[in-house]
Amino acid sequence: MREFELLQHIFAASRDLGGSVLIPPGDDMALLRLGGGRLLAAVDQLVAGRHFDLGTTPLDLVGRKAVSRALSDIAAMAARPLATLAAVALPPDFGDERAKRLFDAMRSTADHYRCPLVGGDIAIHGDRTHPLLCTVTVLAEPAATPPITRAGATVGDVVYVTGTLGGSFGSDGRGRHLTFEPRIDEALELAERLGAGLHAMIDISDGLGRDASHIAALSGVGIEIDADRVPRPEGIDWRRALGEGEDYELCFTAAGRVPGAVGDVAVTAVGRVVPREAGSGPLVLVREGGRTLAGDDLGWQHGS
Amino acid sequence: MREFELLQHIFAASRDLGGSVLIPPGDDMALLRLGGGRLLAAVDQLVAGRHFDLGTTPLDLVGRKAVSRALSDIAAMAARPLATLAAVALPPDFGDERAKRLFDAMRSTADHYRCPLVGGDIAIHGDRTHPLLCTVTVLAEPAATPPITRAGATVGDVVYVTGTLGGSFGSDGRGRHLTFEPRIDEALELAERLGAGLHAMIDISDGLGRDASHIAALSGVGIEIDADRVPRPEGIDWRRALGEGEDYELCFTAAGRVPGAVGDVAVTAVGRVVPREAGSGPLVLVREGGRTLAGDDLGWQHGS
Repeated sequence: MREFELLQHIFAASRDLGGSVLIPPGDDMALLRLGGGRLLAAVDQLVAGRHFDLGTTPLDLVGRKAVSRALSDIAAMAARPLATLAAVALPPDFGDERAKRLFDAMRSTADHYRCPLVGGDIAIHGDRTHPLLCTVTVLAEPAATPPITRAGATVGDVVYVTGTLGGSFGSDGRGRHLTFEPRIDEALELAERLGAGLHAMIDISDGLGRDASHIAALSGVGIEIDADRVPRPEGIDWRRALGEGEDYELCFTAAGRVPGAVGDVAVTAVGRVVPREAGSGPLVLVREGGRTLAGDDLGWQHGS
Repeated sequence: MREFELLQHIFAASRDLGGSVLIPPGDDMALLRLGGGRLLAAVDQLVAGRHFDLGTTPLDLVGRKAVSRALSDIAAMAARPLATLAAVALPPDFGDERAKRLFDAMRSTADHYRCPLVGGDIAIHGDRTHPLLCTVTVLAEPAATPPITRAGATVGDVVYVTGTLGGSFGSDGRGRHLTFEPRIDEALELAERLGAGLHAMIDISDGLGRDASHIAALSGVGIEIDADRVPRPEGIDWRRALGEGEDYELCFTAAGRVPGAVGDVAVTAVGRVVPREAGSGPLVLVREGGRTLAGDDLGWQHGS
């Protein structure tokens, strides 16, 4: 079972936590009631050998990516950053200076996005072959009421993405997956400009195909994507743009007028929300050159 | 450099984060301002091969310990549990059923202490020799205003501990370090009964000697411990009681009347808070059989 499906299965028992839990596990962040306020929280891991190559990646980019991935979840909820906590497991021969550089990079990234690093933990592995692992928790306050989730997509909505998709992983392990900018300000601008017209949102970490299927599953709808309209860098074909992931752009569904850009980041219509019979039919359909392909066949049927 | 000292060094640059950060890194939890409310947050890691032996420890006790360690930080601040997030890194051959059992144990422990599991992450390691690692973030609300920190110890205070110390790690790897009860209710009762007389508190994870030195360092005082008064199980000598750690009992300093027990957990006076010249002198002194030993010589001079 893949990581996402395993986690979904595990948290299926937590759908109704009641009490102070307003949005349970399954969305980009959980929403909690705290006194008279609201708090969003999420956690994310970055593992050497899985999410980056420690041999070729400068430590400042490791720390930056560890924090930026978690911050991207804040963007997905159109929320205001509050604070970051970082736990790091280090091989025993890692060295104090390198540990400090790693934390410096996490701290400066967190500060840059107004999400200060307020707590942390360091554990030293028992064996030098064990991998560097960064676990980042982020806390935020919802900007919209109710906050923007994966569950609000409505039949008739247009599906949009920010930026371009695909090619984030270079052949040398470098690339935009290490240097992306979490779309926090862009998401806040979308929430403000679209108001009640902004229905559902997610950040694209697993690839547009799979992440759109998460919106479709939680919203009880289908999503059709026009492959030719998906914005992508030169030399990237649509399969890579929809399947590779680690873009950390936003995918959202909205009704009404949507600007062609937020800040200096392009916003592109790539599809539409369509009906889906409950519990049946593909979550995501891709229209490409006159053909219609089901997400299942492309490997994206998940979360249903 | 040990893990604690490295983390202290790294966070020395974060002493004044301003804005919404009311207690910066360095205490058991960070305190944040959130709207009109207050929020405490902390993160803790549990690593196979370091904190438990995966070969001999049942998974339900692994999950229980992972969450209980973090909950013990909530007790240390005399706070009310709010929510838990759990991130787990698994070897690729770990198996879905065992992953579910691990999360079930974390969830039931979190539920038991009214701190529901609201979010999580799973990462699969790239290599089967890489260790199981659980990272647990806990969120809480302070019960006292201001909350009980490590920094409030005052000359003349008496130093107390709950329960007994030492012998938590059995020779077979089992023992109380896997089955302890975080002292959340006991801490809340102490805060209520002692009121403004409860000055400083910490949970004993590194051993009473070292953890008392953390209170002394942040409070700008010295602490004298009477070795013979430290409560310990049959067969455990005072050096083990002060040095072994993983007791997860509370150590606190207080003025005024203190009960001999909270709930059914004994409270024992073990020492006193004494003056210390700023930046000099031992943080912890141990009186034992007419001798006075400095924490430095016993390996506990830390955090100064």
